[in-house]
Amino acid sequence: MTLEAIRYGTGSLQILNQLLLPHQTVYEEIRGVQAAYEAIKAMKVRGAPAIAIVGCLSLAVELRAGAGGDDPVTFIRESLCHLTSARPTAVNMGRAARELIEFAENESMEKNSEQLRESVIAWIEDMLQRDVNDNKKIGNYGAQHILSGVPRDSVSVLTHCNTGSLATAGYGTALGVVRSLHALGRLKRVYCTETRPYNQGSRLTAYEAVAEGIPATLITDSMAALTMREMAISAVVVGADRVVANGDTANKVGTYQLAIAAKHHGIPFYVAAPSTSCDLSLESGRDIIIEVRPPEELTSINGLPIAAPGIEVWNPAFDVTPHQLITGGIITELGVFLPSELQAALTGRLTAL
Amino acid sequence: MTLEAIRYGTGSLQILNQLLLPHQTVYEEIRGVQAAYEAIKAMKVRGAPAIAIVGCLSLAVELRAGAGGDDPVTFIRESLCHLTSARPTAVNMGRAARELIEFAENESMEKNSEQLRESVIAWIEDMLQRDVNDNKKIGNYGAQHILSGVPRDSVSVLTHCNTGSLATAGYGTALGVVRSLHALGRLKRVYCTETRPYNQGSRLTAYEAVAEGIPATLITDSMAALTMREMAISAVVVGADRVVANGDTANKVGTYQLAIAAKHHGIPFYVAAPSTSCDLSLESGRDIIIEVRPPEELTSINGLPIAAPGIEVWNPAFDVTPHQLITGGIITELGVFLPSELQAALTGRLTAL
Repeated sequence: MTLEAIRYGTGSLQILNQLLLPHQTVYEEIRGVQAAYEAIKAMKVRGAPAIAIVGCLSLAVELRAGAGGDDPVTFIRESLCHLTSARPTAVNMGRAARELIEFAENESMEKNSEQLRESVIAWIEDMLQRDVNDNKKIGNYGAQHILSGVPRDSVSVLTHCNTGSLATAGYGTALGVVRSLHALGRLKRVYCTETRPYNQGSRLTAYEAVAEGIPATLITDSMAALTMREMAISAVVVGADRVVANGDTANKVGTYQLAIAAKHHGIPFYVAAPSTSCDLSLESGRDIIIEVRPPEELTSINGLPIAAPGIEVWNPAFDVTPHQLITGGIITELGVFLPSELQAALTGRLTAL
Repeated sequence: MTLEAIRYGTGSLQILNQLLLPHQTVYEEIRGVQAAYEAIKAMKVRGAPAIAIVGCLSLAVELRAGAGGDDPVTFIRESLCHLTSARPTAVNMGRAARELIEFAENESMEKNSEQLRESVIAWIEDMLQRDVNDNKKIGNYGAQHILSGVPRDSVSVLTHCNTGSLATAGYGTALGVVRSLHALGRLKRVYCTETRPYNQGSRLTAYEAVAEGIPATLITDSMAALTMREMAISAVVVGADRVVANGDTANKVGTYQLAIAAKHHGIPFYVAAPSTSCDLSLESGRDIIIEVRPPEELTSINGLPIAAPGIEVWNPAFDVTPHQLITGGIITELGVFLPSELQAALTGRLTAL
């Protein structure tokens, strides 16, 4: 079984409510833009790529039903602005909105309302497919690269946070690499960290692994180094929130510590991310501002207090892994690059695309 | 205010019920051996040194009331055997029982019942005081050693798990070093890791820090490396479950990873432990067997499920930090030693004692 976080057919959209995971698997019908806005705002769907996809697909559903009447461009523009406001920090939704509005405006020059609706729907459906395809390329490139360095029949890898079907349009980035290894019959086991404080590993990655029968073992974040030493780990693969020009990578807090432990054990450390997550406008990770989140994420779970009252808390959501520690490479849909190769590779290839 | 986990006065013993921490601070009267047995078995008191102290003190309380009548040695022997059976793996209780039974048997040669009771009570009260004094020496040696390498006015340190008043007769080992720095007015801040999966850091260390006004910040285990990079950490100090002859140290899982991160940042890494935690009969950490505990410790908190059902779990309770990573030294009540100096230092000094 393949886990579907987003179910889309012509005129119909359902999402897996991630607020109820891992204890309940409930798909909710998203009948249009307002429902998508509410689902995004309530975090029933999370992960920047997934937010953008669900937002745009909800627009496609309404357009299929004839929304926008004689002026679909205005409807499209207003809908996308509304969707972007649900989680203003999710950049992918904003970028998709800008691109789609520009596309719709151009199309409206030469097409009637019905034709315009059709071509915008096609653009959105293509976006969904492209995202999944890019992830599959990432998975394939990553799996081949990991296997090329390993004489073993099968490999064990370690990952962090959730970078799977639940965070993307499907398949996933770092977890996509794991899926590809599993599909090739070469995955012995994936070790997934709990990923405190929000527990994306124990709630979401573990859920995806159980759902698809991927051999997986949950560990606490503190057990990662011991796992590297005891469990013959061939690679550590993580996702990225942002990769900058020199290869420095912002990702879920704990990534930096994993990279240090991997280096200590001589285990290749990989970052898996689509080229759209690479931000060549920033030179180094020093320029990335780290979001500090509320103390309650550490001091309670589901509203249940778990820490001594009155204790101060530091809760940075991300950390920056310096490029020197990304020893395996950066896995993109265009191939696997060393941090030092990234800028040239993306500049050249992206221009050529 | 100094946090007291054990309150003892002539003929009276109270313990802080650790099952109710950090949310309720409740002292329970321990009227005798059976009450202590039950409190130890239920884990109202935990930590190997604390278990031994509470067990022996409960015996002292009964002896003060005249227990044992004309044959106190039999009463002492039976009481100590019973107490040892409450948590058979807690070695300190067993060692204290052997020593105390031998002492009582020798005393009985030349003393009457009343005199014997008095000398056994004195032995037990001395044990309590010795443990606290040893911890204060550890704290003092550790604080001086850390400060000697630092030009700063005040230092920030990072610790793991709970090694404070709640785990010992009082003051603590690694947390004793923190207390000493604070008492000297030289502690800027202690960062304590949550210490998954049992959360000794967020529940117990945070509780001790709040209770005594020690400036402390709680972080997740995954944030330790970032904290080392961002927060000017001068030393990492942890406790030990067992230090073997070459200095390899078994301690709460996560310690190994902290030591790797400390090495990466050039931060001295210290183990604080009384000489009685040093086991010179084992040559290296390879000989230490690691206890693997139930999956439920990771997959639920207070009975509330927090992970995807069906996920496999690996839950080692301890890890072994190789002596090469213990760059600061091993802090004992006899002084601070490099791992390579430990065996000679303890063999010579312990013989001389």
